[in-house]
Amino acid sequence: MSVSANVIENARLELDELLGDRCSTAQSVRDQHGKDESWHIACPPDIVCFAQNTAEVSEIVKICAKYKLPVIPFGGGTSLEGHINAVEGGVSVDLNQMNEITAVNREDLDCVVQPGVRRKQLNEFLRDTGLFFPIDPGADATIGGMASTRASGTNAVRYGTMKDNILSLTVVLPNGEIIKTGGRAKKSSAGYDLTRLYIGSEGTLGIITEITLKLYGIPEAIAAATVSFPDIESAIQSVILTIQSGIPIARIELLDDVQVDAINKYSGLDLPVQATLFLEFHGSENSVQEQSEMVDGICQDFGAKDFKWTTQAEDRTRLWQARHDAAYAAKALRVGASMWATDVCVPISRLSDCIMQTKEDLDKSYLIAPLVGHVGDGNFHLAFVLDMDNPNEMAEAERLNGRLIERALSMDGTCTGEHGVGLGKKKYLKSELGEGAVGVMATLKAALDPDNIMNPGKII
Amino acid sequence: MSVSANVIENARLELDELLGDRCSTAQSVRDQHGKDESWHIACPPDIVCFAQNTAEVSEIVKICAKYKLPVIPFGGGTSLEGHINAVEGGVSVDLNQMNEITAVNREDLDCVVQPGVRRKQLNEFLRDTGLFFPIDPGADATIGGMASTRASGTNAVRYGTMKDNILSLTVVLPNGEIIKTGGRAKKSSAGYDLTRLYIGSEGTLGIITEITLKLYGIPEAIAAATVSFPDIESAIQSVILTIQSGIPIARIELLDDVQVDAINKYSGLDLPVQATLFLEFHGSENSVQEQSEMVDGICQDFGAKDFKWTTQAEDRTRLWQARHDAAYAAKALRVGASMWATDVCVPISRLSDCIMQTKEDLDKSYLIAPLVGHVGDGNFHLAFVLDMDNPNEMAEAERLNGRLIERALSMDGTCTGEHGVGLGKKKYLKSELGEGAVGVMATLKAALDPDNIMNPGKII
Repeated sequence: MSVSANVIENARLELDELLGDRCSTAQSVRDQHGKDESWHIACPPDIVCFAQNTAEVSEIVKICAKYKLPVIPFGGGTSLEGHINAVEGGVSVDLNQMNEITAVNREDLDCVVQPGVRRKQLNEFLRDTGLFFPIDPGADATIGGMASTRASGTNAVRYGTMKDNILSLTVVLPNGEIIKTGGRAKKSSAGYDLTRLYIGSEGTLGIITEITLKLYGIPEAIAAATVSFPDIESAIQSVILTIQSGIPIARIELLDDVQVDAINKYSGLDLPVQATLFLEFHGSENSVQEQSEMVDGICQDFGAKDFKWTTQAEDRTRLWQARHDAAYAAKALRVGASMWATDVCVPISRLSDCIMQTKEDLDKSYLIAPLVGHVGDGNFHLAFVLDMDNPNEMAEAERLNGRLIERALSMDGTCTGEHGVGLGKKKYLKSELGEGAVGVMATLKAALDPDNIMNPGKII
Repeated sequence: MSVSANVIENARLELDELLGDRCSTAQSVRDQHGKDESWHIACPPDIVCFAQNTAEVSEIVKICAKYKLPVIPFGGGTSLEGHINAVEGGVSVDLNQMNEITAVNREDLDCVVQPGVRRKQLNEFLRDTGLFFPIDPGADATIGGMASTRASGTNAVRYGTMKDNILSLTVVLPNGEIIKTGGRAKKSSAGYDLTRLYIGSEGTLGIITEITLKLYGIPEAIAAATVSFPDIESAIQSVILTIQSGIPIARIELLDDVQVDAINKYSGLDLPVQATLFLEFHGSENSVQEQSEMVDGICQDFGAKDFKWTTQAEDRTRLWQARHDAAYAAKALRVGASMWATDVCVPISRLSDCIMQTKEDLDKSYLIAPLVGHVGDGNFHLAFVLDMDNPNEMAEAERLNGRLIERALSMDGTCTGEHGVGLGKKKYLKSELGEGAVGVMATLKAALDPDNIMNPGKII
């Protein structure tokens, strides 16, 4: 269902009057806003608007509402399930110019940011305050995008996900109305949890234009380590025991042998090509020491031999940069290849079964798909390295992805731990949650966005 | 708006057929279900049903839906804002017979419980597993009630609130349909956060009939302490600095001099009648030692002199029992008196101002109202001790309560940190969140419960 050229032209005239040269229909700009980092087919919007404040977003949405034009919020473009693809055309609202950190309340351990603020920008800004924002999905995503997709990443095992680290939001509703979902109190029981309703709603219920985030003191001591295992199962068992022991580890990341090989080549590391854990510990000097000795002991019990420490900031940065580049490293395994990234999450007691069965599947396939995981949460990713123009390879990835999800759901897990639904996971939602729960989601969507203009075609 | 006697009688016949003697219209049973522990006027339901499983709750709700009869879920009856009062009559669904702990997944640190399970019952059941559920609102509430009101309490500063400790819910919708909001994965990005939508919805969107909870390992070491201060401001400043220092304290509770006097008398303690903090530390032996020394140092800097330790389980139990009995101790200050409990929460940088101004207000009033607080979260309570039949005293409590809330809202806080909206905080919701956000809540309510049968008159 796309919109008539006439309607688009009328809307464009109004948007043009509002925004001047911050309203664009140039093909290159539209193309740039039509695709994220996923495998989904590019769908450029008809118009791209660059908003500079909440009031302007509200005016843009009001014009779109008048013409019943789709509205797609756009942040870093780093999403992985086609979240920003304009599948029904319409207006992409680029929020990158709204990139101010409007308040840091040091004594309250919180800050207020516009949605276009990047994760790294925020932490650079905060450095002198002794505070940091822990959520780290790898990509240098915008905070607005991270809120919209309920992002998490490497630090989630200790600090939770976006849902746990947002105090309140400003949201522009589908009719252009502006609401605030809460104040800065650390907790509240004042009515329905609107903050959590918009977190993870992927732009389908409104546009997030301001976010109040929790911050944390930069730990007195940080130490990182790598440890290689004789086989992947031993690595996973070490993770499970670490979590079950209640050790407050900050990061515990699994890379399989395929992924280690890829990052050795891409990032110039020389790790043994074996299943490997990347670890990080936060705390006081004593506590970091205590935690690390406990984890070292656990890993040794499972046959690991070379627990390698680093407390040097540069070494840690190099390590985590390599981890964050895992997807690019995977892609580089094959010249000219593309990547199809997927993720699932299961209860940690099922993690070993889930990963081992997945590895068996991959061993039988001709496709390469390195495996990495935020395994402390039971969450792991595959990155299929493939030629998107080859329908056989795409079908094989789809088959393996479907089996992966079916497996995770059979283990009381979820079809997506952190990437979101977007376009790619829509068809699995009913298997996971049932007709009834998805029906409630559809009811919410219809009630809050009756004309279905907010990022149509996603989630529901 | 109450329902005709004819309709009630027809519904009663059907409920009677379904439940036999677990459907009651006896006056004593109705009275017992018409009032919580709040100051709100009792409103008995027309019928009380005692449900034994989810399917039965579904059948009860279907009958109520057919007759458009109000449905009010009932747990421990310990809520504080009239949540279970049947203000429009209807059917109270008592969930206390649904009190089974249906699964403990030790290796995943989670469990599945029915809504009538009590907090203490759960922790007694868990003791041999080495795990515990930390959320502790004081009263021995049901887990269903705690989920429905987004409860928190003394441990929230370390472990978060109910919203942070529930993985998924089973909910009976207003049409009797049964949904599950998620699996047991530790995190998920699979669509709208229905779990968080129902947490804190106070029975106005459906009845929670099963809860999957996160559990934690019982800490290796637990230590508690009391510390008295020369004045309340010094106590609060010590709390603020403790939180800002990132010390992972498990409990940090403030009692003002009035409250200390009350619990000395009620619970047989002999604390100095001064502003006092009750503290608890969880962790390894080393970490507890380290944390406690840091907090001791902070308190001394603010003039505290008698930091008193206890690592004995009996002493700790006695201390926290006294803290939990604070409200009853307050009531006992005046023979035959009743209690009006209220709470607010502010950003911690404003906590001192908020409490000091509140104490000034109280000093000028003839009403007694001990002050206690989960001050690590910026959350505190007043318990007005009064004669509910005396309209002057009720008006004075209302005036002081109104000023307290206005003050908290002016400081970017909330009208209720943990008690919920119920009947008592409805009129403050728009001041806190604005017409727009409350409008979204009303839209959600109308969409999900179009006949307004689920706990009508609450929140919205």
